[in-house]
Amino acid sequence: MFTGLSAFPLTPLVNGQVDETAFLSLIETLAAARVDSIGALGSTGSYAYLSRQQRARVTALAVEAADGIPVMTSIGALRLDEMLQLADDAQRAGVRGLLLAPLSYQPLSQEEAYRLYERVALAVSVPLCIYDNPATTGFTFTPDLLRAVARLPNIGSIKLSPSGAAPAQMAEEMAALRRDIPATVTTGTSGDAQAASALLAGAEIWYSVAAGLWPHDMRALAEAALSGDEARTAALNASFEPLWALFRHHGSLRVIAAAAELTGRVATPCLPEPLQSLQGDARAQLQHVLALREYR
Amino acid sequence: MFTGLSAFPLTPLVNGQVDETAFLSLIETLAAARVDSIGALGSTGSYAYLSRQQRARVTALAVEAADGIPVMTSIGALRLDEMLQLADDAQRAGVRGLLLAPLSYQPLSQEEAYRLYERVALAVSVPLCIYDNPATTGFTFTPDLLRAVARLPNIGSIKLSPSGAAPAQMAEEMAALRRDIPATVTTGTSGDAQAASALLAGAEIWYSVAAGLWPHDMRALAEAALSGDEARTAALNASFEPLWALFRHHGSLRVIAAAAELTGRVATPCLPEPLQSLQGDARAQLQHVLALREYR
Repeated sequence: MFTGLSAFPLTPLVNGQVDETAFLSLIETLAAARVDSIGALGSTGSYAYLSRQQRARVTALAVEAADGIPVMTSIGALRLDEMLQLADDAQRAGVRGLLLAPLSYQPLSQEEAYRLYERVALAVSVPLCIYDNPATTGFTFTPDLLRAVARLPNIGSIKLSPSGAAPAQMAEEMAALRRDIPATVTTGTSGDAQAASALLAGAEIWYSVAAGLWPHDMRALAEAALSGDEARTAALNASFEPLWALFRHHGSLRVIAAAAELTGRVATPCLPEPLQSLQGDARAQLQHVLALREYR
Repeated sequence: MFTGLSAFPLTPLVNGQVDETAFLSLIETLAAARVDSIGALGSTGSYAYLSRQQRARVTALAVEAADGIPVMTSIGALRLDEMLQLADDAQRAGVRGLLLAPLSYQPLSQEEAYRLYERVALAVSVPLCIYDNPATTGFTFTPDLLRAVARLPNIGSIKLSPSGAAPAQMAEEMAALRRDIPATVTTGTSGDAQAASALLAGAEIWYSVAAGLWPHDMRALAEAALSGDEARTAALNASFEPLWALFRHHGSLRVIAAAAELTGRVATPCLPEPLQSLQGDARAQLQHVLALREYR
């Protein structure tokens, strides 16, 4: 399940409660667009802000509405026992994969992070995706740790954070990682603004925030890049540049949340307080970008 | 309550449950040493790893056992509604202050952080301590934000992270901050290895990890520094340098947890998994340091 386009929808909230109708509608759009998988509770789905009960419920709703498309969900938490409980809940709900980021409050040592992946990997029966996201977790995998974790049992993919490297360098990094990890573990990219380059450089799956709201457009881009069609990839990617500029400047979550609010896909506000979607001038800029073309 | 020596004890865990007997014994030691206040659920008390129920229980135990010494507790959480619930619980338990760090998963904007302090400050009836700890929260206060938050109602203190500046520079920074914030808001220091310098430079309270285990020794150091006795401060501080070296290298939590384990004050292991106290060579080094003198 860890190849192609994986769409990461919002979990819209109203006064701290999940807006189930709006969430189901988002999932139905993804199912209709036949994305390759759905990341029901990624960072974009605010997993870290939800209770165990809310996470179990959202996961179950996603699996039901996904129309057979594989669903994965995050089991990240600060305590190991919570991670294991969340993994049980998610597997019971029928997920086909589990996302695990090394959340931290006290910064984790490399050894602590290795041990936590080991404990979880040995306890689960569906594949794990190693979720590398230093901007949210504060944790940076060393290259050695990433490779060691990728060799554990039950690892299906690595969701890499944007490397910031130029295309040639990115291809080298991706090839080096590819050589060092089992063939059963795919390399994936996040950071939508750089995803096209990463896919051309060898990433096998795009974990996409924008696809959670606009799966058709992002599927076109993913297909172009995964087939190696550089010209078409560049043209499509350039057409999304006004969006990527906002993602780079404000973070993808605030932009996609505001876009969902502005287009009536979710109620306003949809993020858990104290987080806010785009406000003021930035929101007006997004409104302008959305008026220039129809995203779908 | 936000002056002098504030002791931050561990919350010892056994299989994820609070070891209440061990915790009460730590609090009783602090009460007997007459520290100026007790920070029952600081970072050292693993507040971020505990459930709402556990936090309420630990806070109540601390207030009961503190023998009249003012207790403060952390209300940090990712969601605003959780922070407000935790504040209610803590106030009901009889705390005299609330610690609030801007926890984050999605990095908070300065504006989001301001609004969250504003919302909480207006909702509580005991003073708040602004808890600045970028290493754990991933959030950095700009100087402007720190000053703006300090001017909100119900702010009692600022718990600053170690500045890393040389003494003269530190005194200037502290004086500049002091001029810009209300007289009712004290400036406090954390980071035990640098605390003596910060107190000599003008900080009015030391939020101390080491005092949570060894209140007598740290009270002697705090009193020397707060009275401006530079020679005595330097001598005492030098005597603790083997400890501070370990704090700097491994983080204070892992060292103090291992020290509590090694001296039988708590069961082993006492930290929430995946966190580990010092292991291997580092633990042996600590054992050697503890054998050189009796800390109390």
